[in-house]
This record gives sequence, C-alpha cells and structure tokens, in this order.
Amino acid sequence: MTKITFSSILESLPDTVPFVAPEELERNRQQKFISRIGANESAFGISARAAEAIKNAVGVSGCSWYGDPLSYDIKTLLCEQLGLRREEICVDAGIDTLLGLTVRMLMNPGDVMVTSNGAYPTVNYHVKGVGGIIHGVPYNDNHEDPVALAEAAHEHHAKLVYLANPDNPMGTRIGVEEILTLIDNLPGNCVLMLDEAYFEFMPEEFAPKINTAMANVIRFRTFSKAYGMAGMRIGYAFGNESLMKGYDKIRNHFGVNKLAQIAAAASLQDEKILPTVRDSVAAGRAKIYTLADELGLPYLESFTNFVAVDLASSERAIKMLSLLDEHGIFMRKPMQAPLDRYLRVGVGTAEEHDFFSSKFPDLLQQL
Amino acid sequence: MTKITFSSILESLPDTVPFVAPEELERNRQQKFISRIGANESAFGISARAAEAIKNAVGVSGCSWYGDPLSYDIKTLLCEQLGLRREEICVDAGIDTLLGLTVRMLMNPGDVMVTSNGAYPTVNYHVKGVGGIIHGVPYNDNHEDPVALAEAAHEHHAKLVYLANPDNPMGTRIGVEEILTLIDNLPGNCVLMLDEAYFEFMPEEFAPKINTAMANVIRFRTFSKAYGMAGMRIGYAFGNESLMKGYDKIRNHFGVNKLAQIAAAASLQDEKILPTVRDSVAAGRAKIYTLADELGLPYLESFTNFVAVDLASSERAIKMLSLLDEHGIFMRKPMQAPLDRYLRVGVGTAEEHDFFSSKFPDLLQQL
Repeated sequence: MTKITFSSILESLPDTVPFVAPEELERNRQQKFISRIGANESAFGISARAAEAIKNAVGVSGCSWYGDPLSYDIKTLLCEQLGLRREEICVDAGIDTLLGLTVRMLMNPGDVMVTSNGAYPTVNYHVKGVGGIIHGVPYNDNHEDPVALAEAAHEHHAKLVYLANPDNPMGTRIGVEEILTLIDNLPGNCVLMLDEAYFEFMPEEFAPKINTAMANVIRFRTFSKAYGMAGMRIGYAFGNESLMKGYDKIRNHFGVNKLAQIAAAASLQDEKILPTVRDSVAAGRAKIYTLADELGLPYLESFTNFVAVDLASSERAIKMLSLLDEHGIFMRKPMQAPLDRYLRVGVGTAEEHDFFSSKFPDLLQQL
Repeated sequence: MTKITFSSILESLPDTVPFVAPEELERNRQQKFISRIGANESAFGISARAAEAIKNAVGVSGCSWYGDPLSYDIKTLLCEQLGLRREEICVDAGIDTLLGLTVRMLMNPGDVMVTSNGAYPTVNYHVKGVGGIIHGVPYNDNHEDPVALAEAAHEHHAKLVYLANPDNPMGTRIGVEEILTLIDNLPGNCVLMLDEAYFEFMPEEFAPKINTAMANVIRFRTFSKAYGMAGMRIGYAFGNESLMKGYDKIRNHFGVNKLAQIAAAASLQDEKILPTVRDSVAAGRAKIYTLADELGLPYLESFTNFVAVDLASSERAIKMLSLLDEHGIFMRKPMQAPLDRYLRVGVGTAEEHDFFSSKFPDLLQQL
C-alpha cells in the first residue's frame, strides 16, 4: 500500500503563495499590461554587446553544450574589476539560488536568521525550507536598522543576518559606517548576508569598504537589475575563501545557463551599459519624484530602480494596486506594516512612465 | 572572535570533484577540442524554431523580465502531448535541479536511496547533500537491475530508488514490464525517481505505460538531450499530484531562464526536431558500431546518443581517454568497476566522428 510521506521539513511548510507573476495576472485579466513596472526589472534592456553575443552563440556551442561550471571567463573579469581572487567568488543562477545555497550551507534546522520585518521574502522562504527560524526587527524610519539587527542577532544567537543595501522594497540605503559597525558587532558564529542586488544604482561613495579578510560577510550581486538580465538567471556571491569553498559542496555545478554566462561576460566588458542605465534610471526616478510632488504624495529618496511612494494607508495602497491592474499597469507594494502603505513605483521606459502618469492622478481621486 | 561553522551536513561532505568540464580540460591543454563527444550533449543543435524564437526575444521581454514561474505555455503543450494535467508537472532548471529538489522534498537525514553502482553520480551528490545514505546494487550484464533495486529497497527501508531508462553511462534500456514490476514491488513509502533524460532516443514501444495514478513514481525529462538544450537548463518532472505539489514549497519559483522557456515552448511546437535528431543519432550510432566492429571491439546496443565500447580493462580505457585528450578529442567513461572498462563514445557531428575515427585505430595500437 503506497503512502508517501514528505521529509519532516517539507511536511512543516505551508502552501506558499510566492509573488504572483505579471504573466499570471495577465492571464486572469485576459490582457497584457501596458506598463510593467512592478517587479524591479530593468526597462532598459541588456548591454548591446551582450545582445550581440547571445545572438551569435545561438546554436550548438551556446545552447547544446553545458556551461562552464567554473564560470571561468566571468570570474576573470570580476577578479580584475573587484580586486578579488577566483576562490573568493561563486557564480550561480541568480541571487535567489545563492541565498538558498547559503542557507543550506550554514544553517541547521532550528538555527535562526535575523532580518527586517518586510524585507525580501525569498530569503525567508529559503530559511523555512531548511527548517530555520526567522526573527524580524522593525525598519527604522523606512530604513533597515543595523543596530537592531546586531542586537537581535545576539539575543537570538543568530547564525545569519540578512540585510539588503540598497534595500528592496523601500529603495533606501544604509550608511557606510553603519554596515561596518554591524559586521564588527555580530556574534562570533554569525554571517551577514549582504544583498547588493541594487548596488550598481547607488553612487560609489556609498559602497562600504568591506574586504574579503572579513570572514563573516557574504555579498551578493546580480546581473538581473542594472545589467537588465533578470530573466537570464545569473549572479554571484563573494567573500572570504573559507566560506566560499562551501558552495562547491552543494551547488549545481552545471546549473548556470550558458547564454547567461556569455551575456554576463560581454556585459562586464561593455563600458557603456552601466553609465547609460544609471542615467536612465536617475532620470526615471526624477520623473516619479516630480509626479509625487505634483500630487502632494510623500516619497522616499531611492538608490534603486524604483521609488516608494506614500499612499498614507495600506487600504489605499491595496485599492490603488487593483485600480492600476484594471488600467493596464502592473505594480507591487511592500506587504508588511508599516511599510505597506507605500506603493513601489518602478522606473519604466518613457512610454511606461507616461502611461502610468496619465492614469495615476485620476486613480488617486478614486481612492 | 569570528569562527564560522558550516551546517552539520555540509561539514560532513567531502571536497567533491564533480565532472571536470571540457572547458577546464581545454584550459589545461591550452587548445580547444576538435571533437567534443564526451558529455552526451547533442551535436545537432536546437530546433530551428527555437533558435528563431530566442533571437527574436533577445531584449527587454526575453532577457530583462523574469520568466513565468508557472511555465504556463510549456505546461499547456506538455499536457496536450503527454495527456497530463497542469498539476502533475513541475518545470524547472533541468533534471539536476529537479533531482536535488526531489531529494530535499522526500528525504530526512539518514534516509536511504538505492541506486546502481556506477549510475548517474549527480543524484548521489544531491543525496549526500541532504545527509542521505546511498546503497548501490550491481549492474546485471551492463543493465540496471530492477529486481535487485527492489530487493535492496526493502532490505534498506529505502525512501528513494533511482533508475535511469535508458541508462547513462551504459546506454542500455530496461524492459517495459520490468519497470512496472519494480514499481509494484517497492516498499510502501518509497518513490521511484525514473530519470528519462534520454527517453526521446528510445523507440516508442519501449516506453513503460506508467500513469500518474501511481503515487510512487516521478519521471524526469529534459530539453537537454534530444532537444539539444543542455546549456539552457530546462527540464520537467511529472507524476501524481500528491507528490508534485511538494515542489512548490521549496523550488526557486523564478529560477528558470526565460529564453530557455521560450525555446522549450518553440521546440515542443516544432514537429521536425525530434525525427531529425533521432535519425541523425541513429546514423551516428551505426557509424560507431561499424567502427567498433572493424576494430574487433565489443559494444553495447545503445538507446541514447552515445555508445559504450568495451576496451577490455579499466587501465586501457583510462589510457585511451588520455590519448584522445592529447589528440583533440574530449570523451568520458564510466567510473566504477566493472563498467569502467568501457569508453562512452558520443555521437558527434559527421566531422567530429570522422576526426575520432581517423585517430582511434592508431591510438588503440598504442594501448
């Protein structure tokens, strides 16, 4: 008689509703969105060199051959650009994959991760997936709070602390010194997962001077955001070699898409892509600021490719998402109080922004 | 004082040397291979429709937007072609990823997987990665042995049994009735992981009639082999809904490359790709058979895109790999006795095969 049981951890997990994808919303509304400005995807596409490299590689060597499990070419470029050694970098299929591996690498069931209430939910999903426990601390005035994170890490004997800088979903950043102080103040067996998915959008002077001699920090970067490759699934972690060597014991060695590898290497050699995208994103943010000012809505200064705009209550923000959906605009918002009164307005193309700004003032009146 | 410990499971894992990639061998030999016929990759590329679809999608919607976490379009096509329901399918980033998820979904630390000695090592890697235990049974005359697998599953109270049909690394297949008998004879809480990566190379009459009402089987298929998309990382599992729903609790929902999704959907709509590749592979296998016959070497009838050729001893086979490498030919062989006296000769392009067959007879003389 067949009666299959799942693993104890899996049995304990709820049926999750992760982010509902815009494609699923489109199937429900039976129409495509006109502005897709809700998932922090880049509206400005990929590097021209990357696009050319992908097109040239379509065929046996780019599609039928497995990717290089060492991501050798990408690591060579990252070593040059970041002053790292090969052994200090792990390239894998995006930050989500790397967060999942990090949690498996460091946590036993029952171990604690400290994060901020309302911060990136996917890391929580991975922690629960290994039987870990999550303790959240509140945001402090819409910023993640490194002091509270360090305190909670001690109080709960945390194995991991998660911090995104710049932050998603609020778009804010943490001071350079505050991050270094957090690292200094962590418990002895605790690792900071520093998610820098939006790093490239932040002026360079705000980058903390963390070096890989610090054995309790792993930084995560991605080609998804500024490089416009969210759909390609490639990112990297870097840190002290003593930590990084753990990934090789559990990662999927042949798991990175080869066209993504080719595109990432081409992007790192394209000097135009980052300045161009940064300018476009800055211009887009400025337009969102102006619109919010015109409408008398408070907003947060953003160091990312989206702007958190204050709609004064969660109810109004939820209603607005639904109105926007009706009118062909895909948007998301923070899910947890007190962040949940904000709308997370993505920087879109000029057309996407114009369409949004043509609808938004009227929809505000309907709240 | 910082002293970071890994999770107990990770601490217990050895430094693994997974498959050494051909790219790494090329860096060592400082020259590209002329024949890449060692990793069971398709030499015949991807569907023309898929290639066109990829090229058309390069840009914001194909690269910068996240893929659809439900892989809706692919599932629609698979439902039509395989007579399944959506809930019975999980699409993810290749069989390796799905094997890893399956093991996490079903095994507690200390649980047992039964496999064949010398079968696909990546599944063992994943089992060890969750603290599972592996019991191997011998091949029976170069075929995996379903009777021995079922017996061992009972003896060791196994949670999982792994069987590849057709088999890698030997290329052989198991009888239709034998697989059904194995499924019938499994312990009550044991799941068969049936890896059908090479399924499309096998004549249809050899496909076992497994239906998804059987709640103790998960079948794995891929776009890597016959569809020529190993570098794209996309495959699927299917089986009883009660099992399949577990994947949603731990998988990376946004983890599949969007170009891979687009290419997979296009491939499923291309009626030419499978017949064309099957013919090319059959012709390639016939040429390998003929060459082996001419050289007086025994070989196994293959139902895959490679042929196991008997070199009489492991020492001779190891020496041959090294000679082939020196002469620009990338090949691999089974790693475990008694399979390890075979050479796994991949079906390459006509040029790759001709180059191999121009060198191989002379190299045999050097053994």
